[in-house]
Amino acid sequence: MAQSNETPRVSEPMQQEKLGPLRVRMSVLQQRARTLGIPAVVVVEGMSAAGKGDAISGLIESLDPRGFNVYAMRAPNEQEKRFPWLHRYHQRTPAKGRIAIFDGSWYDEMFAAQFNDDMGDAERQIKRNQTCDMEGKLATSGAVVIKLFLLISQKEQKKRLKKLEGDKHTRWRVSKIDWLQNKHYERAHDIYTEMMEHTSHPFAPWHVILSEDRKSTIRSIYHIMIDAFEQAITQKEALAQSGAAPEYGFVPYVKPIQTAPIQLLGDVDLNKTLEDDTQYKPQLKQAQQRLKDLHNRIYQAKIPVVLGFEGWDAAGKGGSILRLTQALDPRGFQVNPTSAPDATELAHHYLWRFWNHVPKNGHIAIFDRTWYGRVMVERVEKLTAEGDWRRAYDEINQFEHNLADWGAIVIKFWLQIDQEEQLRRFHDRQNTPEKQYKITDEDWRNREKWPLYETAVNEMLQKTSTSFAPWVIVESNNKHYGRLKVLNTVIDAIEARLK
Amino acid sequence: MAQSNETPRVSEPMQQEKLGPLRVRMSVLQQRARTLGIPAVVVVEGMSAAGKGDAISGLIESLDPRGFNVYAMRAPNEQEKRFPWLHRYHQRTPAKGRIAIFDGSWYDEMFAAQFNDDMGDAERQIKRNQTCDMEGKLATSGAVVIKLFLLISQKEQKKRLKKLEGDKHTRWRVSKIDWLQNKHYERAHDIYTEMMEHTSHPFAPWHVILSEDRKSTIRSIYHIMIDAFEQAITQKEALAQSGAAPEYGFVPYVKPIQTAPIQLLGDVDLNKTLEDDTQYKPQLKQAQQRLKDLHNRIYQAKIPVVLGFEGWDAAGKGGSILRLTQALDPRGFQVNPTSAPDATELAHHYLWRFWNHVPKNGHIAIFDRTWYGRVMVERVEKLTAEGDWRRAYDEINQFEHNLADWGAIVIKFWLQIDQEEQLRRFHDRQNTPEKQYKITDEDWRNREKWPLYETAVNEMLQKTSTSFAPWVIVESNNKHYGRLKVLNTVIDAIEARLK
Repeated sequence: MAQSNETPRVSEPMQQEKLGPLRVRMSVLQQRARTLGIPAVVVVEGMSAAGKGDAISGLIESLDPRGFNVYAMRAPNEQEKRFPWLHRYHQRTPAKGRIAIFDGSWYDEMFAAQFNDDMGDAERQIKRNQTCDMEGKLATSGAVVIKLFLLISQKEQKKRLKKLEGDKHTRWRVSKIDWLQNKHYERAHDIYTEMMEHTSHPFAPWHVILSEDRKSTIRSIYHIMIDAFEQAITQKEALAQSGAAPEYGFVPYVKPIQTAPIQLLGDVDLNKTLEDDTQYKPQLKQAQQRLKDLHNRIYQAKIPVVLGFEGWDAAGKGGSILRLTQALDPRGFQVNPTSAPDATELAHHYLWRFWNHVPKNGHIAIFDRTWYGRVMVERVEKLTAEGDWRRAYDEINQFEHNLADWGAIVIKFWLQIDQEEQLRRFHDRQNTPEKQYKITDEDWRNREKWPLYETAVNEMLQKTSTSFAPWVIVESNNKHYGRLKVLNTVIDAIEARLK
Repeated sequence: MAQSNETPRVSEPMQQEKLGPLRVRMSVLQQRARTLGIPAVVVVEGMSAAGKGDAISGLIESLDPRGFNVYAMRAPNEQEKRFPWLHRYHQRTPAKGRIAIFDGSWYDEMFAAQFNDDMGDAERQIKRNQTCDMEGKLATSGAVVIKLFLLISQKEQKKRLKKLEGDKHTRWRVSKIDWLQNKHYERAHDIYTEMMEHTSHPFAPWHVILSEDRKSTIRSIYHIMIDAFEQAITQKEALAQSGAAPEYGFVPYVKPIQTAPIQLLGDVDLNKTLEDDTQYKPQLKQAQQRLKDLHNRIYQAKIPVVLGFEGWDAAGKGGSILRLTQALDPRGFQVNPTSAPDATELAHHYLWRFWNHVPKNGHIAIFDRTWYGRVMVERVEKLTAEGDWRRAYDEINQFEHNLADWGAIVIKFWLQIDQEEQLRRFHDRQNTPEKQYKITDEDWRNREKWPLYETAVNEMLQKTSTSFAPWVIVESNNKHYGRLKVLNTVIDAIEARLK
């Protein structure tokens, strides 16, 4: 993602400009951003004792407290360590019109790992790509992303640490790490500088602030915030008037990912059945017993598993999921049904609600319908602008790449049936009392749009089947065949991983 | 809450009845409950090695995995310990139509505390009342609450623990505590029995299952579940037809709480001003400095603070909150704006979304509009049945009592202005560009309903002002006076607590 790098912008201390007018401008901009539904992410990093807390206090003085959150991020606790490292940050990304201020962030985490020699080059590169992916997605969806770094000299740092330790009310704020950083100031400085050079992008630039004087630091922050908000607001208003699809002034950040070849739906052989259908029950039992044992082993090996289910209405998603979960320890899996997003979910990036349901390591998350709604129903029903769903293929590949890099087994099932079979099942549902809840008018409406969906599904399969998160087409005209294929696919994937 | 106690119901092992038909009935009932929007809470407790896991696996075999969650609750971690002990359970209460199965629960926690002599009689009584409150609220809102206890003999327990330890795949499941419980079986048994006798209510009964044979245990569970679901479904359908407000077959669980006297709005003196308005700025600065210091001290003393703001539109909630937060360390407070509930929030108990925003200990949570919407806007706009909002006064008192028992400082501010002042401020907002976003048609509509709101507010103040969570009426025609009163009220409350 180097193409979009740029050098961090350094703010020199301002002359004696009054803060008052800046505060007023900022507070008006916050309201306009809220009205326009523009979210903002503000990352505040810096050398130890550079005054992050003061800077944030100074900044929020002018903000409506009902419109922002400050997140003091510290080292992840045991619980947080069981999720992808960016999980807790994704969860805290702001809703439309809100400002999320991070006092310490993913950069803090990366710095600490590097400073303590806990992170190799490969891991560092992966983590930087992931943060670029996160920030890029936010920016592309219209968010303001501001990254501030407060810089002080080694001498000034020493002075401040001593002062903090001298006061009994602030002593608890000084840790060994802080002193260690002061001792190895040069090294810390180099690590930060190199990190910022590689993570400063036009859509999420770093701003280095020489921060030895509190007032001028806050002044600089206001100028940076005001510029960024004005730019975003102008852009959003221009868009609103033109009605055009979002256009952003930078090369799309997403790195295209190599996909793997996969069948077109038209070529799927739906006549597949079991050689001997009387063998279904025993084979099912056997597969479930096998999966039960494997579930125990991935639990102990702390391997996470993410299974996505998509397919035509009545293709048998529920039945397949049930055959899976019957074999699983209920304490080690979760099924996440996906329906139309509610107001809160709509106010966030479309992948936010799925980040919230990523499994703990050692657990299995099963999604009944998934993030692929973006390129299926949202495309077909025109719920999302074309530019947005077109971009989603790469965004989704990156999302799944995040999970795979973390160590997750990721499989996406497409349950395929033909129109005749669907019609049979719709009628069966209507004629069976305890199945009637399963069939709605919407199912009939979707059915009429079969060709539109088939086009969307084919494009989706081609553009998002990857080595690390493959699509598996399940021939499901024959339910028994389909269920066993799902079970055995999961079993094979886990066994391959455990080898 | 003894009035609603009853003795736990003991299920004898069933004869050799087939499981198949029970499974089918249960799965049909789950679908009907989903369609009717009936949530269910299933608590599974038992002696160590009584087979909770097996029982849950057996139960969910028949359930649609998209309709339930299993929560394996263990001892709270450091993060969870910073919240009220029931917080993590409230967060997991089910949405309409869903089933939450607790493998270990609040009872586990109470048992452990008692078994380890970590809990005095007073605390035990408080915690039991709180669980009764939680279960009662769920039941009253239409949820099925089922509590299962799996009982095995000391001899059987010993046999099973040995067997588990013998197998290298299951060895990790056996802990010292399990053996300790077996050694002191009598004592454990007595504690559980006494606990169940005091927490078995008609709306949330305990079912003790003699659990030495797996099949008959699962059979018993199905019978208990089926009976409970059928009863709830019948009741709900009857209600739907009659259109009557909910009537439940038990004495309302809520214990009325003694309230404190408070003014009627009509008696509030709105002419209050500062003796010398030029003193506003210095007094504000002084109060904010004082609060800043106190914030540090409650942070270190780990005292949580909950501040609720209600009042007429344009009464100055935002301004008062801003003056507060300007004095606070941004890492130690959170402002929670409350607007109309979204779909997810509507699918839960109305207090659920507020439980989700309870502060950590040592932190301050500020609510801009609160849970009192239940007895104001929802009452006036007829969004909630009368029986439901009438019951809410006691429910809310109990909610706040939970927070107070936990150690929180709880204050609710009512910002009072008169109609003339509101009109002035509405016009001012319309005529000031950067304030226009603050005034909407809804504000004008609400204004027309002033008398209806005044009646509702007066009843609310009378019925929910308590010694542990008082209402403070803030005379706000004069903004300076109002803001200082809010600040000083918070300061006084914190100082009183720190003494």
